[in-house]
Amino acid sequence: MSTVFATAADAETAFYDAFMRRDIEAMMQVWDQSDDIVCIHPLGTRLTGVAAIRAAWASIFSHNPQFRFQLAERVVYADAQLAIHIVHEHILIESDAARRPPVIATNVYRHHNDGWRMVLHHASPSQTQQPRSAPEVLH
Amino acid sequence: MSTVFATAADAETAFYDAFMRRDIEAMMQVWDQSDDIVCIHPLGTRLTGVAAIRAAWASIFSHNPQFRFQLAERVVYADAQLAIHIVHEHILIESDAARRPPVIATNVYRHHNDGWRMVLHHASPSQTQQPRSAPEVLH
Repeated sequence: MSTVFATAADAETAFYDAFMRRDIEAMMQVWDQSDDIVCIHPLGTRLTGVAAIRAAWASIFSHNPQFRFQLAERVVYADAQLAIHIVHEHILIESDAARRPPVIATNVYRHHNDGWRMVLHHASPSQTQQPRSAPEVLH
Repeated sequence: MSTVFATAADAETAFYDAFMRRDIEAMMQVWDQSDDIVCIHPLGTRLTGVAAIRAAWASIFSHNPQFRFQLAERVVYADAQLAIHIVHEHILIESDAARRPPVIATNVYRHHNDGWRMVLHHASPSQTQQPRSAPEVLH
């Protein structure tokens, strides 16, 4: 039986909850079951489709330490069919001596008859200072 | 006089054209004139609002070498008011000995009375291999 998310915010809550619990079945319930879904992990290549995205989450869940998320500074663009959420993911690990810079994530949700599902997760590391003069970073 | 983009694809073409020409006025014509616009350059912090985004492009245009873009593997989610384009930006510089890994960009466009404008550019570097086992990359 599949879970129905009445709002994009509900789907987002379920996404980060599954991520923290490292629950692959709950994670894949959040995603649209389409070939056009896209997931980009920080510094990773672009993954498309259910099989590749599921395999990457399974690998991440088997490697990651236990951590919590704090989400902050959400910006939302939304209409009846699409919702784009841009968030700062603050990742909290007990063994960390200092606070990490946030991961910036763009999450896109799409509405179908059965509610809202994730179609895109694009996450990237942010540095505290932008390396504008570094020659390898062109924009 | 402001330029009107009849489609999100037209706005995207103008965005990369302004980027290659390092034309700050043409670049800012592509963006929505709102406080909620967001721009994330590779490894950079999240910039919001017209003033901050304009200042960063001006800085980039003053530092960047001459280069060309080739866009590839576009994935699109769109309805009447919002369009999300995920693209691979292949950056071509004559002095480069080898092809660079692509930058992955999520570009979001919003429709108003006067056509389509960019509200989000989220760009991040991709490595050819995903650093799954690197402890500092948590997902």
